[in-house]
Amino acid sequence: MTTDAPDTHPPSDSFHVFDTTLRDGAQREGISLTVADKLAIARHLDDFGVGFIEGGWPGANPRDTEFFRRARQEIGFRHAQLVAFGATRKAGTEAAADPQVQALLDSGAPVVTLVAKAHDRHVELALRTSLEENLAMVRETVEYLREHGRRVFVDCEHFFDGYAANPGYAREVVRTAHLAGADVVVLCDTNGGMLPARVQTVVAEVLATTGARLGIHAQDDTGCAVANTLAAVDAGATHVQCTANGYGERVGNANLFPVVAALELKYDRRVLPAGALREMTRISHAIAEVVNLTPSTHQPYVGVSAFAHKAGLHASAIKVDPDLYQHTDPELVGNSMRMLVSDMAGRASVELKGKELGYDLAGDRELVGRVVRRIKERELEGYTYEAADASFELLLRDEVEGRARRFFRAESWRTITAQPADGSLENEATVKLWTKGERIIATGEGNGPVNALDRALRHGLESTFPELARLQLVDYKVRILEGTQGSQSTTRVLVTTSDGSAEWSTVGVADNVIAASWQALCDAYTYGLLRAGLQPDD
Amino acid sequence: MTTDAPDTHPPSDSFHVFDTTLRDGAQREGISLTVADKLAIARHLDDFGVGFIEGGWPGANPRDTEFFRRARQEIGFRHAQLVAFGATRKAGTEAAADPQVQALLDSGAPVVTLVAKAHDRHVELALRTSLEENLAMVRETVEYLREHGRRVFVDCEHFFDGYAANPGYAREVVRTAHLAGADVVVLCDTNGGMLPARVQTVVAEVLATTGARLGIHAQDDTGCAVANTLAAVDAGATHVQCTANGYGERVGNANLFPVVAALELKYDRRVLPAGALREMTRISHAIAEVVNLTPSTHQPYVGVSAFAHKAGLHASAIKVDPDLYQHTDPELVGNSMRMLVSDMAGRASVELKGKELGYDLAGDRELVGRVVRRIKERELEGYTYEAADASFELLLRDEVEGRARRFFRAESWRTITAQPADGSLENEATVKLWTKGERIIATGEGNGPVNALDRALRHGLESTFPELARLQLVDYKVRILEGTQGSQSTTRVLVTTSDGSAEWSTVGVADNVIAASWQALCDAYTYGLLRAGLQPDD
Repeated sequence: MTTDAPDTHPPSDSFHVFDTTLRDGAQREGISLTVADKLAIARHLDDFGVGFIEGGWPGANPRDTEFFRRARQEIGFRHAQLVAFGATRKAGTEAAADPQVQALLDSGAPVVTLVAKAHDRHVELALRTSLEENLAMVRETVEYLREHGRRVFVDCEHFFDGYAANPGYAREVVRTAHLAGADVVVLCDTNGGMLPARVQTVVAEVLATTGARLGIHAQDDTGCAVANTLAAVDAGATHVQCTANGYGERVGNANLFPVVAALELKYDRRVLPAGALREMTRISHAIAEVVNLTPSTHQPYVGVSAFAHKAGLHASAIKVDPDLYQHTDPELVGNSMRMLVSDMAGRASVELKGKELGYDLAGDRELVGRVVRRIKERELEGYTYEAADASFELLLRDEVEGRARRFFRAESWRTITAQPADGSLENEATVKLWTKGERIIATGEGNGPVNALDRALRHGLESTFPELARLQLVDYKVRILEGTQGSQSTTRVLVTTSDGSAEWSTVGVADNVIAASWQALCDAYTYGLLRAGLQPDD
Repeated sequence: MTTDAPDTHPPSDSFHVFDTTLRDGAQREGISLTVADKLAIARHLDDFGVGFIEGGWPGANPRDTEFFRRARQEIGFRHAQLVAFGATRKAGTEAAADPQVQALLDSGAPVVTLVAKAHDRHVELALRTSLEENLAMVRETVEYLREHGRRVFVDCEHFFDGYAANPGYAREVVRTAHLAGADVVVLCDTNGGMLPARVQTVVAEVLATTGARLGIHAQDDTGCAVANTLAAVDAGATHVQCTANGYGERVGNANLFPVVAALELKYDRRVLPAGALREMTRISHAIAEVVNLTPSTHQPYVGVSAFAHKAGLHASAIKVDPDLYQHTDPELVGNSMRMLVSDMAGRASVELKGKELGYDLAGDRELVGRVVRRIKERELEGYTYEAADASFELLLRDEVEGRARRFFRAESWRTITAQPADGSLENEATVKLWTKGERIIATGEGNGPVNALDRALRHGLESTFPELARLQLVDYKVRILEGTQGSQSTTRVLVTTSDGSAEWSTVGVADNVIAASWQALCDAYTYGLLRAGLQPDD
């Protein structure tokens, strides 16, 4: 850091943390992101403090076009700039006449990453054009976007393989992009076959021979993407392209989290806003939830096992000096040394969370201990409170008050889903409830059993609690949790509810999706009534 | 290779591939190995051709003592030597009088790895002895084992941290072990905090200042264990300690498979018997089965996604020259290239995928066009075929044959899920089917509505198709897909089914999870019956 900017937020432009989870990460087998997913991930990445978020390929994909439109309107980015990704103009046209280049401008993103071919055989076989024309495509597209006020980065696809095959041409592409006005030229190991020593050599040579500012984009096919990224930094690259949790095509991309952790903790280089690294574990897990993949338990720094020590012969020495047995302080990355089921389940975080909700728990050690134990029990069963703030608040209230006060109690419920011979689909639910001493029976129909159950529940309660009319389910997620050895798997449901001004999430866990949904729905409406200012009389 | 040993089996002693899955790998959270498990893994590792298999810590652990006894009797090792692991003698005793040292001899293993402290503070805090005594412990234990005919390797625990704290003492431990007769001194990054550049520097310095033959043992806490291992080799280490699939404490150890693949394929160094590398994918998955962990789909070289290509725009160029898009030939490691059918699907990827399945579609442009249109329609509805090969194959068959031939048709089905007043949970399903002209009504119960529906369906079909008895649902995934603006969300279900020798995945999409599951189940059993060699008569 320079002395006149001791605490830059975000860190200065001299080093770029560039995230491409929404573009390259989305190529991972099994990931399929909706626009809402992409917006949620973009918010998490901005919270984390990356400098650039590559949002997708506007024009090539209607979902990506829509993402840029909504992100501009809905997200007030604090740290990141949005980046649109696209190819150089088509061969034999003009940049101004290429609709995909136009779509990059239309996206409104202040930064554009252009992908360019840097491997002579790819120019001939995939682009089917001449090496000269490819250089013109790079030059003219960069210039055109610069003329329209965009900052431009150029991704040189297959750079390392191309540099091995024809180093002169690969360098010429870098030089062309640089001279045309690209701020950073990114050397991509597209096929992921590189090892760090080679990456370091090539980056150093290209830096010396072209004078361009260089970035690195590494794929993990040799298991060395993090090391390759750092090797490029060692050689002078000042822009790293990564994805959250290493998501990406084939094996994946360089994982954002160990890359930034190494830069901050091992290189002592400030690349994130102050304090952001401590959010890393939470953000890694939250993004995994959005893409609906189980967070890797063994991921460096952020995995639940990353700082788990087998007790035993080291235990006493660990007590004397934990630093002898861990390469870094887990709190620096928001993780913890013990095998905690969640990051929430520490006394301090429960106190903090309680304070946030208006409960002063600091004085009551016994109560805090009880809450921590309860969370741990529930998380062992599969509940997660990280993503279910409202269920956490209900749990906390129940412990503070010593009992579970509710607006209503269920006596029983039943759903029927059927596909009769005419091929239609029927869903019907019946609930039997008690509220204010009265027994209520209500039925509902819906497009699925959970929807029918939700309607039956609302129908049964709305005359007593007209406040429910304002509540709307805005998101519903299902996750099958693998059982531990020998046991059955269980189902976790997360429901997000809105009252028009705020949103809250609730969780249910059970053997099957309907029973889990029932729990989450009950929590959702209970919390909604509390928010509306009502007090349960039971 | 030297010219007088062009085809060494196993490769010469000049480079050691040393596996510690059975000792360090077993420390992974969630792994618990029986003696039978350890014997099975040892056989796989020997098949793979590693030079050394560290079997455990005899004397410290009865299961490990038993493993050495049985391995000696039951396994005829073709390539590997068994290695016993243990500590240097206790402080203030003699090696001959230390029962744990005796247990190393009693194990009958021809090779012993001794773990020694090389970090001054660990000597003081964990061993609670003097720096001098620690050196005597190393020297005397190595000499004692050498006198008894054992080959000795010495693992210097916490070496890299110790070298940073007190380089003179760390070097002294290496020199002492070397002069006492240890064949290899292994520098261990026990806490796993190193990065490749530092590993390379330290290994080079220690090699130059001690003259010992050096090995490397890297943990993966920075995500760089593979790269750290290779960096040590670059600096002159000739012995690499790894674990299958990277299993190990906390994040894990250096993964054996990408390390040997890099050495063989990128360094062009023969470290395994000829032909062994082609068994790598099979052996990686087999070991995962033994330890009861799902094989990582995204593991370098051996994951099912490791050579899976999604991007449709590359498919035409892949047809021309696959080497342009993969860093190595997947067949060299026993894996294969897969084309994922995704929403970027084009004609070329459908042709490639058809070829993979045994259909030559290249000549029939109209058919390929129809398949592409059908996939795009279905993917718009929410289907995904990249993760549902079997549903894709059924779709392809239907288009090739011009109609959907099936073993059975559903007339109707119904599920009831209820929570009666006693709080229990009931799930019941009824299906009405037609098969071979006959109408069948069957019911099933289960732990959820889908489980009940599955049982009803199987129950209804098993008398006609006894082949179904072998089929088992091994995975079940649910994803809620947000609808486009204004429309309802839909549910996607992916089911994986096994017949004991192969697995296949099927997909269903519908308004609700039960109807979507029904489709995926019907596809799963239809595909299973086709695989069993049956032909539908309808």
